[in-house]
Amino acid sequence: MADSQVSTATVSKVFRGTFVHSTQQDALVVLEDTLLGVDSNGKISFVERGQELENVSAKFGFKCDVTQLSPHEFFMPGLVDTHIHASQYSYAGTALDLPLLQWLTTYTFPVESQYTDLEFARRVYTQVVKRTLRNGTTTACYFATIHTDASLLLAQIANDFGQRALVGKVCMDRNGALEQYKEGTQESLDETSRFIRELLKRKYLLVKPVMTPRFAVSCSGELLLKLSEIAKNNNLHIQSHISETKEEVKLVKQLFPDLETYTDVYNEHNLLTNKTIMAHGCHLSDKELELFHKKGTSLAHCPNSNISLCSGLLDVRKVLSHKVKLGLGTDVAGGYSASMLDAVRRARDTSKALSIMDPTRVPLTFEETFRLATLGGSQALSMDGQTGNFEVGKDFDALRVNVAVPDGPIDLVQYDGPKILLEKFLNTGDDRNILEVYVAGRKVVPIE
Amino acid sequence: MADSQVSTATVSKVFRGTFVHSTQQDALVVLEDTLLGVDSNGKISFVERGQELENVSAKFGFKCDVTQLSPHEFFMPGLVDTHIHASQYSYAGTALDLPLLQWLTTYTFPVESQYTDLEFARRVYTQVVKRTLRNGTTTACYFATIHTDASLLLAQIANDFGQRALVGKVCMDRNGALEQYKEGTQESLDETSRFIRELLKRKYLLVKPVMTPRFAVSCSGELLLKLSEIAKNNNLHIQSHISETKEEVKLVKQLFPDLETYTDVYNEHNLLTNKTIMAHGCHLSDKELELFHKKGTSLAHCPNSNISLCSGLLDVRKVLSHKVKLGLGTDVAGGYSASMLDAVRRARDTSKALSIMDPTRVPLTFEETFRLATLGGSQALSMDGQTGNFEVGKDFDALRVNVAVPDGPIDLVQYDGPKILLEKFLNTGDDRNILEVYVAGRKVVPIE
Ligand SMILES: [Zn+2]
Ligand SMILES: [Zn+2]
Repeated sequence: MADSQVSTATVSKVFRGTFVHSTQQDALVVLEDTLLGVDSNGKISFVERGQELENVSAKFGFKCDVTQLSPHEFFMPGLVDTHIHASQYSYAGTALDLPLLQWLTTYTFPVESQYTDLEFARRVYTQVVKRTLRNGTTTACYFATIHTDASLLLAQIANDFGQRALVGKVCMDRNGALEQYKEGTQESLDETSRFIRELLKRKYLLVKPVMTPRFAVSCSGELLLKLSEIAKNNNLHIQSHISETKEEVKLVKQLFPDLETYTDVYNEHNLLTNKTIMAHGCHLSDKELELFHKKGTSLAHCPNSNISLCSGLLDVRKVLSHKVKLGLGTDVAGGYSASMLDAVRRARDTSKALSIMDPTRVPLTFEETFRLATLGGSQALSMDGQTGNFEVGKDFDALRVNVAVPDGPIDLVQYDGPKILLEKFLNTGDDRNILEVYVAGRKVVPIE
Repeated sequence: MADSQVSTATVSKVFRGTFVHSTQQDALVVLEDTLLGVDSNGKISFVERGQELENVSAKFGFKCDVTQLSPHEFFMPGLVDTHIHASQYSYAGTALDLPLLQWLTTYTFPVESQYTDLEFARRVYTQVVKRTLRNGTTTACYFATIHTDASLLLAQIANDFGQRALVGKVCMDRNGALEQYKEGTQESLDETSRFIRELLKRKYLLVKPVMTPRFAVSCSGELLLKLSEIAKNNNLHIQSHISETKEEVKLVKQLFPDLETYTDVYNEHNLLTNKTIMAHGCHLSDKELELFHKKGTSLAHCPNSNISLCSGLLDVRKVLSHKVKLGLGTDVAGGYSASMLDAVRRARDTSKALSIMDPTRVPLTFEETFRLATLGGSQALSMDGQTGNFEVGKDFDALRVNVAVPDGPIDLVQYDGPKILLEKFLNTGDDRNILEVYVAGRKVVPIE
């Protein structure tokens, strides 16, 4: 380790055992008998071989105890949910019998319109933050609703429980289906400015606002353009939806007849930046993906939702071949599961379904989906300088996994090595296997 | 209730609350505030309205306490796993990177050949029976291995833990890939006869043998034909695999060049009966499905396995339109999950993937997959006279589900009614929500 990387902050936690993570080069790197130190700022101070304990201890001068993992345990990077509607969690696991546009008007808008009620908001947002943390989501990119105060409450709850989050107050000035669930154009701009101002004023370390036009169908061109200006002036992340279903693509073409593609709609309104993440993208053309690449814009792949609402099957390999950054999202409640383990499984299922239809398509490996759910997500959110894997200097966002936890979902017959343990966990594990969750070095699970 | 249906056995258990089940007419019937009585033989004595308690008590003369369910609880019929390889459970959740035929030779045969070791067998078979019971599988149709004694052990363990099961000693006299994992033709016949004789001698109430030629690739024509005779002489169930992958279909055509279709291979060897269940069937033609219907032979749909090994996407509506009986199977370990809740979800995913490719295909509803996993499975195993739903006179095979169990996987915001609770459970629940499991009236979970 180069001396220049040695932090001046005190080492406050040291773990010894197996660590698994991804790098740009390798979808899965297994580090057995490894020492990892976390400093008082929550950053990774060192990653060294276990047998170097004495040297490392001398070099970093730490006095804390070393926490030894058991043979069935490992640390992995925290899971990054790049697309989740916190406001839809109340009906997660239900209402999956309609295609997107009818689903929105039948189930979603009526529920989202209830978030004027802050007690309802507090109840659901507390559930979703606690649930996703228990499921190992250390970073979440949230959609709330159009309501500023409820959206600020979501940000506060994420901050209180210690989750890293982007929180978006939804912007929409068009909604023919439910007239009371939309904003006037100026109202949306004013409330968005208030949301950003209030949230930034709180100086949360890990929770930031994200500019959130719902999608082109719900926003006038004027609103889209002015939101992009506010985002630019505040150097904000941007999120929205794109090309989720074919019907939606057609509708956007009708609403913006002068623009050739859905991607052009966002691009012409200056919304495609290197801090923009667009959900779905099932039906994007090669040309549109090229524009994504050129702009540094990312995709949030939401495989459960894409299947559950019969939206489409995203070809991840095609996206990656265009060098477009891609993470995974649960897309609660179009996706019924609030667990990124489900997103990992469904991403693999989707790529296998595509391979069944065309055997020249090579399915994603479990190692690749593991990377998408961790490092890939952090890259898609332009946060990979801070989180996503166990590089020295990054924040320690991590899950302590025990595959053999009593009364857990996994049976082991013999000891099989860390790669098999990871694969078993990704395919058949659940929150019971996640003993501890750390975000920026703070232990946030078990929740106190 | 007609008096003729009143059993003479004593009513020993009475439950009051919500019951959900399926009938031939309705995929989902919700019975609120209902009284269900179970007699000392484990059979359902009555299903009556809760407000009739006094009359029912007088009519049936029961003195036992009435167990009242909470508002977040319901009873549903036990889950029927129509196809599971108990012997492959040790590597469930791993080894999903190869297509079927390579998967068999690389992962499966080497593991199955280990079941000469009865201690290994006892360890894995105990795990799989306990695990599937905890997951709510009240009836399982098992493949073991070629080893008679280990297969008898699986039957004994299922009986000891109280699971309803068909147990098959695998028969295979062809295996070019692993010469030591096969039998001589006569050896297979002798050992199969011994397996059936020994198992029937034990007079287990709920555990029976099932004739189990592995699949046409692994069996000579002579073996297939003679196994069908033994099955007929003992009035046995029969199980095997059919048309799982396109490569397998081609190989069977090469091995049996005189027969037109894969279905013909089994039919010509007298293996298609109304007590036969064939797994997969992804690539069966309409003509083959007609033969299935004519023979009363069933299909076990194994959607997780079909996706995980990239085998194919079974069109369930096409199968049902041919009036072929169909149940769901986990197909551990080609399927990575030993939970029938996963099979329910993946069955819906598969039908939705087919609908994405061709929107004229109507996806299965959650009510329909619920029926396939319960009544459908019992029909596929020709056991619907005994189990599958809450009809008076059938055995009480049931799960007591609590959707709001503390530390469980489901958050509820408000009370939504039993249909929503069932849908939430099927989509996002797990074994933590299954408080009790009954098989033939005996409480088998929690496991003591
Ligand atoms: Zn979304
Ligand atoms: Zn099988």
